[in-house]
Amino acid sequence: MANVKGYEAEHFIVTAPAEYVLRVEINRPKKLNAFFEPMWLELGALMNKASHDPDYRAVVITAAGDRAFTAGLDVEAAGEGGLLGTSTNLDPARKATTARRHIAEFQDSITAIEKCEKPVIVALHGLCIGLAIDLASCADVRFCTKDARFSVKEVDIGIAADIGTLTRLPKIVGSFSWVKEVTMSARWFDADEALRVGFVSRILDNKAKAVEAALEYASLLAGKSPIAVQGTKELLNHARDNTVADSLRYTAIWNASMIQCKDTEDALLAGLKKRTPTFSKL
Amino acid sequence: MANVKGYEAEHFIVTAPAEYVLRVEINRPKKLNAFFEPMWLELGALMNKASHDPDYRAVVITAAGDRAFTAGLDVEAAGEGGLLGTSTNLDPARKATTARRHIAEFQDSITAIEKCEKPVIVALHGLCIGLAIDLASCADVRFCTKDARFSVKEVDIGIAADIGTLTRLPKIVGSFSWVKEVTMSARWFDADEALRVGFVSRILDNKAKAVEAALEYASLLAGKSPIAVQGTKELLNHARDNTVADSLRYTAIWNASMIQCKDTEDALLAGLKKRTPTFSKL
Amino acid sequence: MANVKGYEAEHFIVTAPAEYVLRVEINRPKKLNAFFEPMWLELGALMNKASHDPDYRAVVITAAGDRAFTAGLDVEAAGEGGLLGTSTNLDPARKATTARRHIAEFQDSITAIEKCEKPVIVALHGLCIGLAIDLASCADVRFCTKDARFSVKEVDIGIAADIGTLTRLPKIVGSFSWVKEVTMSARWFDADEALRVGFVSRILDNKAKAVEAALEYASLLAGKSPIAVQGTKELLNHARDNTVADSLRYTAIWNASMIQCKDTEDALLAGLKKRTPTFSKL
Amino acid sequence: MANVKGYEAEHFIVTAPAEYVLRVEINRPKKLNAFFEPMWLELGALMNKASHDPDYRAVVITAAGDRAFTAGLDVEAAGEGGLLGTSTNLDPARKATTARRHIAEFQDSITAIEKCEKPVIVALHGLCIGLAIDLASCADVRFCTKDARFSVKEVDIGIAADIGTLTRLPKIVGSFSWVKEVTMSARWFDADEALRVGFVSRILDNKAKAVEAALEYASLLAGKSPIAVQGTKELLNHARDNTVADSLRYTAIWNASMIQCKDTEDALLAGLKKRTPTFSKL
Amino acid sequence: MANVKGYEAEHFIVTAPAEYVLRVEINRPKKLNAFFEPMWLELGALMNKASHDPDYRAVVITAAGDRAFTAGLDVEAAGEGGLLGTSTNLDPARKATTARRHIAEFQDSITAIEKCEKPVIVALHGLCIGLAIDLASCADVRFCTKDARFSVKEVDIGIAADIGTLTRLPKIVGSFSWVKEVTMSARWFDADEALRVGFVSRILDNKAKAVEAALEYASLLAGKSPIAVQGTKELLNHARDNTVADSLRYTAIWNASMIQCKDTEDALLAGLKKRTPTFSKL
Amino acid sequence: MANVKGYEAEHFIVTAPAEYVLRVEINRPKKLNAFFEPMWLELGALMNKASHDPDYRAVVITAAGDRAFTAGLDVEAAGEGGLLGTSTNLDPARKATTARRHIAEFQDSITAIEKCEKPVIVALHGLCIGLAIDLASCADVRFCTKDARFSVKEVDIGIAADIGTLTRLPKIVGSFSWVKEVTMSARWFDADEALRVGFVSRILDNKAKAVEAALEYASLLAGKSPIAVQGTKELLNHARDNTVADSLRYTAIWNASMIQCKDTEDALLAGLKKRTPTFSKL
Repeated sequence: MANVKGYEAEHFIVTAPAEYVLRVEINRPKKLNAFFEPMWLELGALMNKASHDPDYRAVVITAAGDRAFTAGLDVEAAGEGGLLGTSTNLDPARKATTARRHIAEFQDSITAIEKCEKPVIVALHGLCIGLAIDLASCADVRFCTKDARFSVKEVDIGIAADIGTLTRLPKIVGSFSWVKEVTMSARWFDADEALRVGFVSRILDNKAKAVEAALEYASLLAGKSPIAVQGTKELLNHARDNTVADSLRYTAIWNASMIQCKDTEDALLAGLKKRTPTFSKL
Repeated sequence: MANVKGYEAEHFIVTAPAEYVLRVEINRPKKLNAFFEPMWLELGALMNKASHDPDYRAVVITAAGDRAFTAGLDVEAAGEGGLLGTSTNLDPARKATTARRHIAEFQDSITAIEKCEKPVIVALHGLCIGLAIDLASCADVRFCTKDARFSVKEVDIGIAADIGTLTRLPKIVGSFSWVKEVTMSARWFDADEALRVGFVSRILDNKAKAVEAALEYASLLAGKSPIAVQGTKELLNHARDNTVADSLRYTAIWNASMIQCKDTEDALLAGLKKRTPTFSKL
Repeated sequence: MANVKGYEAEHFIVTAPAEYVLRVEINRPKKLNAFFEPMWLELGALMNKASHDPDYRAVVITAAGDRAFTAGLDVEAAGEGGLLGTSTNLDPARKATTARRHIAEFQDSITAIEKCEKPVIVALHGLCIGLAIDLASCADVRFCTKDARFSVKEVDIGIAADIGTLTRLPKIVGSFSWVKEVTMSARWFDADEALRVGFVSRILDNKAKAVEAALEYASLLAGKSPIAVQGTKELLNHARDNTVADSLRYTAIWNASMIQCKDTEDALLAGLKKRTPTFSKL
Repeated sequence: MANVKGYEAEHFIVTAPAEYVLRVEINRPKKLNAFFEPMWLELGALMNKASHDPDYRAVVITAAGDRAFTAGLDVEAAGEGGLLGTSTNLDPARKATTARRHIAEFQDSITAIEKCEKPVIVALHGLCIGLAIDLASCADVRFCTKDARFSVKEVDIGIAADIGTLTRLPKIVGSFSWVKEVTMSARWFDADEALRVGFVSRILDNKAKAVEAALEYASLLAGKSPIAVQGTKELLNHARDNTVADSLRYTAIWNASMIQCKDTEDALLAGLKKRTPTFSKL
Repeated sequence: MANVKGYEAEHFIVTAPAEYVLRVEINRPKKLNAFFEPMWLELGALMNKASHDPDYRAVVITAAGDRAFTAGLDVEAAGEGGLLGTSTNLDPARKATTARRHIAEFQDSITAIEKCEKPVIVALHGLCIGLAIDLASCADVRFCTKDARFSVKEVDIGIAADIGTLTRLPKIVGSFSWVKEVTMSARWFDADEALRVGFVSRILDNKAKAVEAALEYASLLAGKSPIAVQGTKELLNHARDNTVADSLRYTAIWNASMIQCKDTEDALLAGLKKRTPTFSKL
Repeated sequence: MANVKGYEAEHFIVTAPAEYVLRVEINRPKKLNAFFEPMWLELGALMNKASHDPDYRAVVITAAGDRAFTAGLDVEAAGEGGLLGTSTNLDPARKATTARRHIAEFQDSITAIEKCEKPVIVALHGLCIGLAIDLASCADVRFCTKDARFSVKEVDIGIAADIGTLTRLPKIVGSFSWVKEVTMSARWFDADEALRVGFVSRILDNKAKAVEAALEYASLLAGKSPIAVQGTKELLNHARDNTVADSLRYTAIWNASMIQCKDTEDALLAGLKKRTPTFSKL
């Protein structure tokens, strides 16, 4: 099946299952959707494209196959690519420079999910290991299946997670004790625990239902004013990284132009007439 | 019934139901306590007054009527006042300037709750829409009734919430996924969900009991050393917006003078003598 | 019983109950483990020592006796030491200077737990009052017993907590309403509540089991790559106090050298050969 | 002479010497323009008023008399008002609370100069002591006379300057060594030194010429697009307190609405037609 | 003349005038080197390429022709491209969104100079208007000719400068009064003034000499350890945006790997043997 | 000559040349006062001691011999100590850990100058290389001799300066172009240039006069209220690392206790009686 126009990709199936909704499916199920470099570069490019594309107002990320959302980094491929720092005869400082640039580029690809101006919902299922957490932590809303099993697995291969999990996890769940417990030990946690600590906000019975719920929620958002929804995402992300005073100041100038949209009028009018509002592209 | 002296107001009933406790009741029940500009200016002024008034050591905010804490912004009144940016023939930059000043002033009025040096407890009931969340997020402690229903409703009228909800909510509850889910979709959530994510810290059976619990808790605080209670509020708010190192530095100089109060002695002595301590005004 | 070499102390029993695991037990049970100045200076020194000691990869803090982890500050001793600011005939500015230096030194001693490069697990039991919360908030992972009872008790002696509770608690649990409720009122909360808000991440049946669980968890961490585990702690602590962008930048340069360890190879090889990996000292 | 309408004041002469230009003159020459509480409250109110007043686009602050811009705080009056903390029989913690509120209110009055959305130019002459530096540091542009003599005098009366000099001076001049040298010693510095370190940007021969130059410069600004000039002030002040990345983000949303003004068209057209552009009110 | 391999560009002449030195010359002299969109995108791409290219260790930016470094934005072209916000029939909120994205992309192109890991020296001559200041403020070192004339010209076309001047200028020179004076008024300043306030660090007699000095200085840097020089740039840029404590922490981990280079040994050995050291590629 | 009591040191001569003034002289003139590890540990300890010692109110740092303030790090000794990272057979990650700890400890020793609560004046003469700049950048006030010659020499031995120069220099002088020019090239600059950019605030004819001027200035400070002088240092250092709003908030609570000193009264009284005020110890 061909991807939707403009979203050609080798490792992702990209479809438009509902109006204004884009679905990006990780598609390497035989390898448990494990990532290697071309995959994350491709994912980053897809998210950057979606960010300014007026045809889509919400993005859902899912993964192919029954067993895993993703088993994380394809360690074998990473080893060959020199990613883990063991190759070459450079001195350690020059190796470090190469590694730093490489990590930063990898981070940028995943951060593209967070920077995408449209809301991103992720439907997690099965094994969710390592990069699965980095990736999901960048999404705005996380749903998962009953059988989802999570592990911040990096310490078990001798490294501290460096693609964003350690940076974002403490800011998206409510218990620092829990964050430290699971990240330092690489222990597994399940869907119930993920809900309890606030990592996911809904558990669905199985993958089909999780995908359905994510698409429905995405459709709900896609039907609302894109000025309002995208502004909400931007202001929440700003709040995470700034003081209350700074965010209020940013909010005031943000909305100073945004409230000059026609959407409020359209929404109120549609409300009066009991019909669905339509909003201009953004 | 006349308000307590110094707290005259048109849209709020202000009483002193217990020693050192001030109760501010939103009083526009026929309109579901919806706010228009004179109301938030009045609320800001009341909180500023209470902040330095030695006669009060805790403030409880409640709302009149059975149906709603507040239905939020009175959209009709806001439209007439040009608040939503549709009026006048200024160019968009000049409209934006007017809007920015207006939003900032509105934010200041609600932020006055947070800046009030005395602890502020809010008892939420019934419909809690839009501004209800902005306002409650500024309070220190949130209680609600079983029947409370919440919605960050702004996206449904085509705007991102700009009076503080998007700034503060991620900092007062534990799940960023949940915050984004409810704010981008404007979906309703109930008392149980509010407790589970940490938005409120207690659920009471009905409005009468919620108000009673809030007043009792306020009385409890009012009986303690105002130096200690108000210092605790200030240091917690400082912590929210600063690094650990910066807050420890601020804490050290804060307490360097505050521990020179007589309150410790009074508290210890009262403890020994099994009587209630009394503390000087602040 | 003598403490392990290098960790001599008067008020703490320091043992090495498992490979690479250090246990530090507060040992003043007759006084409910209440702290006075020499105790916190000693604790700070022990943690600083452990921080760079290659013989230990995880630290467990426990407390002697059945009744209390610690009753907090020994108020009587503090009063004698002039800690509460009532002594001497200095002017208030000079008293404040003395107090500020004193508070800062006290904070530093407790912060040493957080700054210790090794993960620190605390097993809380019985009464956990005042300083117990300051201390536990600096630890990485918190376990407690079913009978643990907690109180941020400082307001009841007329002061705002100044050794870190007010600074760290809002950053380690998920409900700011709850944090403010318990810290302003000094009310008790129990193990279930501590788990629900995320303050602790596990409840154990009794002290013996809590200590056992903490030691087992510490052993688990001690068996993993110290590069990975200690990096995880550092990056999580960095994240708490920095924006996402800043922490990603720091993470990239941190791992640029850290992935040049042999640990990844050792871990993968041990995995293939189904044996336990061993890692060089750090 | 009556002040311009809306700017009535007891201690300041407020005139409108040129189109869109407001002049605020400190008027207590017999006391070397020394400040006491009603004066700074009045000054704050005047600046707040000017901030949103569309009739003025630039403000010039000058001072009456030949001898002094201001001799700073009127210590005698401050002593009577209890400002220096020696009065009353409150305990030191309660005195500190009163003092903190008082200092904050005083700071707010002077900060109003910085927060005023219009550019503020100050023409300094003669003695410029203590508060003169606090006040001038809040202004955007500083001119002075040849005979101006400056001193951060506070240490000579036993206090660290607390109305903004120590906060802003390091951020508005280029040598921290110089800042520390003059503030810790209270030593005098003259106009040449003030220019060399960047505190002032122009020296004029005498007071008449300094006032004239300030008014001319203000007139120049007042003739330009108020959208552009006020935006420049806001973005520069934002830059001072934020990282480059944060300020670029703020700049982008600020100008996203501001470039939708008619001023660019008006300016370009006026340029083509060789005439003076006129801009709508702001 | 063909550009050096890998640096093909339409509007820039890119040469390698000395070992490890890249020269990028703005090449639109007939239009006074005024910029339009394809030019800044090209410049950004060139800088990104140079950032990781081991063949170059220093970059010099110059401009073709005698009259101008650059006259800034090509306002005519910008108007056609809708850059100034006057085109289209979108509502103001949607126009603002387009504008924000456009400004951010423009900022990114110029920020690429700052982010380039290699030191960038700019040789300014003749007219240096608007974008010239944005661009030069991103460079590390600024030289200029005696006849250089500078203006932050944006206010004269009704906008606040938004490509970085207002963000960076206060952080690279020492007088905030001067920064505000020149940016709010758009007044010209010359080479001497630029040197006095610290905007440039050297004045040369004419363009030929300025380019020569810049290339010589670049060669000097190119002959030194790239680990040391590039580390110095990175740590200085980090310092600008962070507290001293944060930058010391970042510095420690940065150098923890960087001092493991062979360069120190090579440098010391070359010193002993009185010969020029050579350093491995980076 | 014995050092003053409590300040015993092997590599520093510590004297008390005037009332309340401490002089610390670097004393390894035969090696051009080059530093090796025991020296910086000793310097850190001396500064920590002076910080709280009521017998001293100002510290002057000078260096023995005619030729150099300090030639910086004793590279030979550092190499033997493994400081430059070339020794041992640890893997690069473990070497990096050792190096990071070592750098942090070294930084702490020099930062002790900045953290010392008393003002520190440094009198620089002759060669001022590498560590000389790190050290001087931590001092509050810098004087130098006419013949002083400075170089941030680190790049010439293949490393980026990591003991504070790159962190602090951009914050204490006014031209970022100049800072980058001299630090990336390691070029020499002389006293006049140091004064022009604001690195030093005075040039004296020779070492004797520089020391005399520093001691006189220190005596001047020592004669003033220690509450005022030390508060000024603290508030200026706070300002450097914080926003204006945060520093004003910190200033208000700082002075809330500090203005309760007797020093204002003493100063005013002494002023009236034309005699020198005396202030209580601090």
